[in-house]
Amino acid sequence: MKRIAIDMDDVMADTSFKIIQYINERVNGVYSYEGLMTASDVEKKAFYEVYVANNKFLWEPGFFEDIPVKPNAVDVIQALMGKYEVFIVSAATEFPNSMKEKLQWMQQHFPFIGWQHIVFCGHKHMISADYLIDDHEKNLKTFTGTPLLFTAPHNLHIHDYERVNSWLDVQSRLLV
Amino acid sequence: MKRIAIDMDDVMADTSFKIIQYINERVNGVYSYEGLMTASDVEKKAFYEVYVANNKFLWEPGFFEDIPVKPNAVDVIQALMGKYEVFIVSAATEFPNSMKEKLQWMQQHFPFIGWQHIVFCGHKHMISADYLIDDHEKNLKTFTGTPLLFTAPHNLHIHDYERVNSWLDVQSRLLV
Repeated sequence: MKRIAIDMDDVMADTSFKIIQYINERVNGVYSYEGLMTASDVEKKAFYEVYVANNKFLWEPGFFEDIPVKPNAVDVIQALMGKYEVFIVSAATEFPNSMKEKLQWMQQHFPFIGWQHIVFCGHKHMISADYLIDDHEKNLKTFTGTPLLFTAPHNLHIHDYERVNSWLDVQSRLLV
Repeated sequence: MKRIAIDMDDVMADTSFKIIQYINERVNGVYSYEGLMTASDVEKKAFYEVYVANNKFLWEPGFFEDIPVKPNAVDVIQALMGKYEVFIVSAATEFPNSMKEKLQWMQQHFPFIGWQHIVFCGHKHMISADYLIDDHEKNLKTFTGTPLLFTAPHNLHIHDYERVNSWLDVQSRLLV
């Protein structure tokens, strides 16, 4: 049985959506997910500078407990588990408060995935799998299997990987 | 650079020592680490039955925050990092409260190992490394590199793996 490693933030969870909401609250901004998807490189660079200067909420309790689930993620991942061994692999050890919240989030939305198949790490290059679905190039470029880039506002400029825009794209790529 | 994956409980941390202390408090017992190391199979089975019936402290806050460090673990692991890429790989996702405590414990005792090289997981068979130092056969038997069994009271009956009895043994095996 082939193995798939699946990232959480901006792949299973719509983390950018909540980040944008938090940033808007902190800087009285009017950023939106859709706006970032169509923004120029200069506009996007400006947003990510604001984000880096105002993102300490990532280290505080509560941020990761109620992030929206990406459309179709639940159904497609449940279907993938019939054909593949699925591991959830989240770069979470940078955020000590996030891990308990991420486990609870998994139990709430993906109760069919047990703690045995959840991995919290920093670097991902020691993960052995056949596929990695991730939104960050830094994780995909050291991966030894087949990398799949999950579209997010911060990776639209990357063209070196096979791209999936949604969970329905993942379904078409890995389940048909 | 070759990669070593190192387990935490009963390898870096003297978890059995604290477990025995907690069990004694709960059942008014007189168990000891040294006693378990020389106990008969029947005596050991009796202890582990008591342990399984009285171990809910593993899921409660606080247990993992002040476990003693194994002798020479700090110095030998720091030396290993000069020759190998070191990842700490702990089966911790079963215990949602443990991960923040384990990160703090790492920062306190092993501040030279960053969050980038700490992994909390359930199953360990998707970890890719050249060596795995672990006290549990279930982790070693699916490992694709060279497994090293770190001696603990619960694994004395296992003879299928190269054994290290202490961190000085690890030093002799991997650094000479």
